[in-house]
Amino acid sequence: MSAPKYLDGQEVATHNSRESCWIIVHGNVYDVTEFLDEHPGGSKIILKYAGKDATQEYDPIHPPDAITTNLPVNKHLGPVAPNTVKKVEITVTDEEKARQERISNRPPLDEILNLHDFEAIAKQVMAEKAWAYYSSAADDEITNRENHAAYHRLWFRPQILVDVTKVDWSTTILGHRSSMPVYITATALGKLGHPDGELNLTRAAAKHGVIQMIPTLASCSFDEILDAAQPGQVQFFQLYVNKDRDITKRIVQHAEKRGIKGLFITVDAPQLGRREKDMRMKFEADDPSEVRKSGSDGVDRSQGAARAISSFIDPGLKWADLAWFKSITNMPLILKGVQRWEDALKAYDLGLAGVVLSNHGGRQLDFARSGIEVLVEVVTHLKEKRGLSFPNEKFQLFVDGGVRRATDVLKAIALGATAVGVGRPFLYAFSSYGQEGVEKALQILHDEFEMNMRLLGATSIANITPDLVDTSNISSHIAAIPGDRLYEANYESMQHARLREIKPKM
Amino acid sequence: MSAPKYLDGQEVATHNSRESCWIIVHGNVYDVTEFLDEHPGGSKIILKYAGKDATQEYDPIHPPDAITTNLPVNKHLGPVAPNTVKKVEITVTDEEKARQERISNRPPLDEILNLHDFEAIAKQVMAEKAWAYYSSAADDEITNRENHAAYHRLWFRPQILVDVTKVDWSTTILGHRSSMPVYITATALGKLGHPDGELNLTRAAAKHGVIQMIPTLASCSFDEILDAAQPGQVQFFQLYVNKDRDITKRIVQHAEKRGIKGLFITVDAPQLGRREKDMRMKFEADDPSEVRKSGSDGVDRSQGAARAISSFIDPGLKWADLAWFKSITNMPLILKGVQRWEDALKAYDLGLAGVVLSNHGGRQLDFARSGIEVLVEVVTHLKEKRGLSFPNEKFQLFVDGGVRRATDVLKAIALGATAVGVGRPFLYAFSSYGQEGVEKALQILHDEFEMNMRLLGATSIANITPDLVDTSNISSHIAAIPGDRLYEANYESMQHARLREIKPKM
Amino acid sequence: MSAPKYLDGQEVATHNSRESCWIIVHGNVYDVTEFLDEHPGGSKIILKYAGKDATQEYDPIHPPDAITTNLPVNKHLGPVAPNTVKKVEITVTDEEKARQERISNRPPLDEILNLHDFEAIAKQVMAEKAWAYYSSAADDEITNRENHAAYHRLWFRPQILVDVTKVDWSTTILGHRSSMPVYITATALGKLGHPDGELNLTRAAAKHGVIQMIPTLASCSFDEILDAAQPGQVQFFQLYVNKDRDITKRIVQHAEKRGIKGLFITVDAPQLGRREKDMRMKFEADDPSEVRKSGSDGVDRSQGAARAISSFIDPGLKWADLAWFKSITNMPLILKGVQRWEDALKAYDLGLAGVVLSNHGGRQLDFARSGIEVLVEVVTHLKEKRGLSFPNEKFQLFVDGGVRRATDVLKAIALGATAVGVGRPFLYAFSSYGQEGVEKALQILHDEFEMNMRLLGATSIANITPDLVDTSNISSHIAAIPGDRLYEANYESMQHARLREIKPKM
Amino acid sequence: MSAPKYLDGQEVATHNSRESCWIIVHGNVYDVTEFLDEHPGGSKIILKYAGKDATQEYDPIHPPDAITTNLPVNKHLGPVAPNTVKKVEITVTDEEKARQERISNRPPLDEILNLHDFEAIAKQVMAEKAWAYYSSAADDEITNRENHAAYHRLWFRPQILVDVTKVDWSTTILGHRSSMPVYITATALGKLGHPDGELNLTRAAAKHGVIQMIPTLASCSFDEILDAAQPGQVQFFQLYVNKDRDITKRIVQHAEKRGIKGLFITVDAPQLGRREKDMRMKFEADDPSEVRKSGSDGVDRSQGAARAISSFIDPGLKWADLAWFKSITNMPLILKGVQRWEDALKAYDLGLAGVVLSNHGGRQLDFARSGIEVLVEVVTHLKEKRGLSFPNEKFQLFVDGGVRRATDVLKAIALGATAVGVGRPFLYAFSSYGQEGVEKALQILHDEFEMNMRLLGATSIANITPDLVDTSNISSHIAAIPGDRLYEANYESMQHARLREIKPKM
Repeated sequence: MSAPKYLDGQEVATHNSRESCWIIVHGNVYDVTEFLDEHPGGSKIILKYAGKDATQEYDPIHPPDAITTNLPVNKHLGPVAPNTVKKVEITVTDEEKARQERISNRPPLDEILNLHDFEAIAKQVMAEKAWAYYSSAADDEITNRENHAAYHRLWFRPQILVDVTKVDWSTTILGHRSSMPVYITATALGKLGHPDGELNLTRAAAKHGVIQMIPTLASCSFDEILDAAQPGQVQFFQLYVNKDRDITKRIVQHAEKRGIKGLFITVDAPQLGRREKDMRMKFEADDPSEVRKSGSDGVDRSQGAARAISSFIDPGLKWADLAWFKSITNMPLILKGVQRWEDALKAYDLGLAGVVLSNHGGRQLDFARSGIEVLVEVVTHLKEKRGLSFPNEKFQLFVDGGVRRATDVLKAIALGATAVGVGRPFLYAFSSYGQEGVEKALQILHDEFEMNMRLLGATSIANITPDLVDTSNISSHIAAIPGDRLYEANYESMQHARLREIKPKM
Repeated sequence: MSAPKYLDGQEVATHNSRESCWIIVHGNVYDVTEFLDEHPGGSKIILKYAGKDATQEYDPIHPPDAITTNLPVNKHLGPVAPNTVKKVEITVTDEEKARQERISNRPPLDEILNLHDFEAIAKQVMAEKAWAYYSSAADDEITNRENHAAYHRLWFRPQILVDVTKVDWSTTILGHRSSMPVYITATALGKLGHPDGELNLTRAAAKHGVIQMIPTLASCSFDEILDAAQPGQVQFFQLYVNKDRDITKRIVQHAEKRGIKGLFITVDAPQLGRREKDMRMKFEADDPSEVRKSGSDGVDRSQGAARAISSFIDPGLKWADLAWFKSITNMPLILKGVQRWEDALKAYDLGLAGVVLSNHGGRQLDFARSGIEVLVEVVTHLKEKRGLSFPNEKFQLFVDGGVRRATDVLKAIALGATAVGVGRPFLYAFSSYGQEGVEKALQILHDEFEMNMRLLGATSIANITPDLVDTSNISSHIAAIPGDRLYEANYESMQHARLREIKPKM
Repeated sequence: MSAPKYLDGQEVATHNSRESCWIIVHGNVYDVTEFLDEHPGGSKIILKYAGKDATQEYDPIHPPDAITTNLPVNKHLGPVAPNTVKKVEITVTDEEKARQERISNRPPLDEILNLHDFEAIAKQVMAEKAWAYYSSAADDEITNRENHAAYHRLWFRPQILVDVTKVDWSTTILGHRSSMPVYITATALGKLGHPDGELNLTRAAAKHGVIQMIPTLASCSFDEILDAAQPGQVQFFQLYVNKDRDITKRIVQHAEKRGIKGLFITVDAPQLGRREKDMRMKFEADDPSEVRKSGSDGVDRSQGAARAISSFIDPGLKWADLAWFKSITNMPLILKGVQRWEDALKAYDLGLAGVVLSNHGGRQLDFARSGIEVLVEVVTHLKEKRGLSFPNEKFQLFVDGGVRRATDVLKAIALGATAVGVGRPFLYAFSSYGQEGVEKALQILHDEFEMNMRLLGATSIANITPDLVDTSNISSHIAAIPGDRLYEANYESMQHARLREIKPKM
Repeated sequence: MSAPKYLDGQEVATHNSRESCWIIVHGNVYDVTEFLDEHPGGSKIILKYAGKDATQEYDPIHPPDAITTNLPVNKHLGPVAPNTVKKVEITVTDEEKARQERISNRPPLDEILNLHDFEAIAKQVMAEKAWAYYSSAADDEITNRENHAAYHRLWFRPQILVDVTKVDWSTTILGHRSSMPVYITATALGKLGHPDGELNLTRAAAKHGVIQMIPTLASCSFDEILDAAQPGQVQFFQLYVNKDRDITKRIVQHAEKRGIKGLFITVDAPQLGRREKDMRMKFEADDPSEVRKSGSDGVDRSQGAARAISSFIDPGLKWADLAWFKSITNMPLILKGVQRWEDALKAYDLGLAGVVLSNHGGRQLDFARSGIEVLVEVVTHLKEKRGLSFPNEKFQLFVDGGVRRATDVLKAIALGATAVGVGRPFLYAFSSYGQEGVEKALQILHDEFEMNMRLLGATSIANITPDLVDTSNISSHIAAIPGDRLYEANYESMQHARLREIKPKM
């Protein structure tokens, strides 16, 4: 292997137009001329860095290998000679200045009382695009909101006069201890919210003894995240299966070698969903002088960041592939994204370790039901058809989506889940306060668990039983019929007593 | 036949008052003096053109033969000598100028992400009257909105781990290929939204391989629409049955001769509905100096455009008439506007080709149920009573009303429909962007179908089966009981964490 | 009988204080000194007329005999000599001037499209107190609004392909023809809304061939209303039963003698309801210098106009009294205000002519169910227990409350009602447009009946059968559970496509 | 016992810093230096009074023995010589001035029409913190609001033609007469709302013949409240059980000796709930120069007033303890906070006198069901399992939470409750109008009872039977599915008729 030939920064700088556009990322030069129109983030933002070092802009938005993966090898032009590159001065927009001011006005962490609060702050302090990417969901975002609303159709039947001096909400997940029946589920592009990205989660998870599920589409590299873990810290891995199974095999076996304790194969995303909030963000990012050729070649370039970074995902993944996974790894296999009892039953019959009842945070199929609703159905049918009871060590059920309170988690546990995945709230926590935010979020959950276990009259997770929850309304998908606008406009609301008006003095 | 005698434009110009009012339309002179008070659009607008050429104003609002049909033959005064007519100068109102400015500020088509977006733009760029006509519905518009809401009571039960590399959402409708299980249903007065009227639909349908149903009350003439079709392009025809059956016979046989592939007989409109939004528009259009004689002669002149152009429709149409239709045409006969299983069963027993479960877009009987709800009932009873399963080649079920997403369509298909009719969204599409708008709308549906077929785990329309949809809430017509206004006024909403206020500098 | 001694106006004028307060009404002098604190409308308004002629103020607010009934005979001081009385000059307040301007700006009747419109106008043009009295209802006005909402839980199952060239919605009520299955139900104090009070209803009813139910608490006297009727015009009478049965007997037998065709005995008002909107109106009407002695003597003086004018009503009325009614009259007896099947059954077993399923327009017991809901229960149980089918000539069911559209009426008819009572909408009609308003309201109903009969596929009232209505949701009294305020505050609503902003010119 | 040594006020005044902080309360000096960080109300407010007399600030917020209980005995420094203490001048903030002005603008009591009105006024005139403490509830306050909403799912089936001339709503509770089926339930810290605290309730209860339940956490001392009672006035006592059972024994036996007629043991609060509205209030109360050490020592200091004053409550209380209670007192024992039939059954089997079906006003476990809903379940199961009927003298059922109207109470009575507890409305009544407010509140209930008993056709509490209420919707916990924001944004609301605009004069 010969020494790399260094390119000269000044030469790179001449390729600064739509006709020839080179950029520098992490000290390497790439010819992106032909990629301009395919860039999910639009051509405009690339052209701004044409001939320049784009690393600072690139980093937070892309997984580390995005550029090398998406660009043909012959466009990887090689390293640039370091001292020949001009430093890029970033002009701070007024909008960005206002955001920075908002950041400096965040309330102290002590004033954060619940997981909703992180979201309220994150909405204020995150860059608009990042917020759009995290918060967006499929189509009309009905499932996204239903995920939360479904918990509101479940009510408690608490017990009294149980000695709850000591309550313990720790549990085991796939055989590993967790300080609470919650794990940090996989979410993409952590650096959009914070420069440390997923490492915030790794470190906070270590402190609080919870398990992190590492995403395929992390902003930090897989090994970075593993390296940040404490000795003995348990981590799971979420897998998007590549069309090229050799790549997948390599990734899986590497994960196993590095000590990953569970492989969660995503099965609800053969194609990543249309998320319109995210997509609307793109319009300002494109070069308006360019006439886009939508529809002309059947290639869809307007689908937001999520779609593009995921083009490798295999829509051909099928039940028959699971045997192959068993042949390449001994990690427990869990399907993430099961949405009906029939598929949970198949997974059980195939000897898998469990399933996550999930609709991908409402980001895939709109009008998919909430995981908590599917849980009730799965428990019923697997009892009926296979005599199983839940929670079950051999075949574990997980749920994610819409969780904001420990009461939400306790409802899922009572109904048979082993643990519940929480995603966005932790993203919002580190987007507003970094690692400390995640720790605080976990501490809030601990506080809520202690309180609510006591109020339910349950001293351990094993005591969180189905009779504690009334599920009779879980499947009531009520859309109130449209209001009578004329009647309502005429109806004059009742008024309560009012203070006398203060007469102005003469 | 003798050569027509040309009238002189200057003579016509003298008939410019309420006492004697002539107008020129498409080069012909009409004496509308006695018609002034019966004009559904009010007398004021006609008087504005008294003695002048009204073609430009007339065209977008009327079906081509409106004037000849509504005016007795002796009021057709004959052609005007072309060069004798003064050109009418149209003064552009401030309101119209503002509208033109809004038109020039439409976002590029690329920014349109879904069918809702067309409606949002159309509302801004259409003339107010045109918007009122398209968007209005019966009485309190409850059924109109319920049509959309009903889809929100249906939830998906998607399958996973199906190889969805290739998904195909093309189908056949009455034996003809369609690139998707959607057809463009009949809607009236297309020129209100765009000068090319229904031709926008014809051309876009050709490009995308979908079927257009031509309306009886089109702004373009029937033959114009047929002529605009590509060779081999499939078109259906929607029929309002005339009190004069000879006219109907002529129309039907002409349609068959021109190659129409299916005759959709409207059965939910023995009288066209009261649409109050449309009716309110009329008040500004009348001559305020005229005392209207409402109630005095039992003739109702305040019912908006829709009612008047439809006075020919026969309220006497009955089941017994269907034999006659079979005797005059070999086109497949479909009843459009069936709203209960009993009537679907009758149609089946009479050997018809199918029914459209529809309430006319909520424009006829308020509190009629949505087509999608009726579909569930029809499928259940026709299975029970005649052993039919759906979709069924011999007796096809269609649904229309309220559809905005491919998921809506897929729900209907899963429950047994052959295809779904979409109307207003395409009107809004061409009203805001012409033919390109309709193409974009169809492209959006294609994109949504591809996505959602994959997410449902279905590779073809045949795989869209009833188990994919939870229908248990479809008949829950919930009107929440009235709120407690005093309690609600007293309840102080919870607040989330807030940014510290920025102290003003000294 | 000696000639009355006339009092001198100047003497009367000296009794102009709280210590001695005389007023003149219709030419008679009354000493109201001791009545001041008991006046339901407050003392302030009386003191304003102390020593003066109060007729103009008195008339619209009181039933004609209010003062003679409520004041002991020894306080009736006799007639005043006409020419000795000073004319009272009414100062017009700014508020009243604004109201008069609103009155002159009413839209022409042609612009009234539905019954809601009258309410919208009446709210603008009525005096505030009058509006409060008409529109107010019991407690939190839940039942009042439920009355309307209940109809929204009933949906149609219309028939098609019925020859509806001719449709006829006339019917018979207690054996008398009515041009529609609607009667004008009894409502109190018509002069609050219009100087002609109930006569507006009498005259409009005659024109349109509908039946008016005359209220006990009319502003016009009973005979005035009868005298205003056309020969052969059918009228019913609503009766509040007096503690003094002799008075009741006299009233009933007078009514029968004058040709009243049905006696509707109110049974849902042993005590008139608390109507807080009405009560709040009173506070401004009292003399603030007076310390009110609430609670001190157990007499409640703060209950608004309705309570006071109704103190004669007998809370002791009971089933056993019905035999007595049968002994004093041959008019058909109907109970108005039945609210459960058990009581409807009793009424049937006692041989009464029918019942009105009503909750008094929501003005009595809050959380009483709507008449239309009770109708379903009554029809079911009377069929089960007595084999009755409805509508039934021998025992007729009526419903009132919340009706605004002919579709509401048709739902009630389909479910077994003979006719439906409409009250407030007609009050609002004459309050905004006098008799012409009521005629227009009836004309609107005619138009809606014609339309909706056709759209239902029913040519006569007899064809309005139960299968036309889906009642499955009628008893769903859903109060949605409270919203999650934090979640909702964080959720960022989706945005549709927007027009480009117009750049300011340089 | 030697005479106490008096401290000199001037010496005390030197301990005015965070390093050494003494305060005077009720003439005694306390060293609170080490307590500063543990003060639930924050350190800032204490430091304001460092070295000074804090009595005036202390009194309304603390139970009388709060300081002696929470501070080690060696920090009780002894009495201060009275004349040596400087009077503290309270600076009135602008905010407080505005509040005082609002107080002076309260409407007269006559204008208060219902219990909601007190809340509307209290919200205006109470100190912000006090309002937060009274009105706050657990988590998202869903249960708090559900408590009220649940009554809206119960509807009446009133009887007619019952002689209701005389209606009597008095009853007996645990064998003691009450003028209505309502008791004043226990609520903490009455002086937050009014200087007389709980004494307002005692005195008003005496006047109206209702029973007051005295809270453990009263602002007034237990004996003060007993001493304020009239001879023969019945009082109950609500007990929080202390970890130190000797203290509890002493309290219970003292209560019995003083004549308490019923002991209500709170069983739904092993730990007091997180009430975020209350907690948010604290942030402004802390010394911002202090870095709080949240999480560092596991002690949670941010939980608002409620948590801290309740640290003595025993989370170890269990069923087995009830035998001990029976051994130390002969008072009837009632469990307050039962939330499922299984626990009501246990209480019955243990021979207790009754249970209160309550969720602590929604202040403990969010998503606990309302007492009224649990009542239906308890009555059903205790009938089925033990053949009991309700109301039942031997085992009485009580309900509290969400009650605002006599109709609410009557629903509970009809379904089997002996009486209903009302809490917050009375707090709001005295917070806005002192004792007179409570009397007015009770008078309003009397008025409503009289009215509604008549309208229900029931002359006594015994006649309030289950058939008067339709309970079929009580368990419908409906959370409407999320709305379609795009559709709703596009839908243009219908408009009613409008007044003509007034043309400006030229």
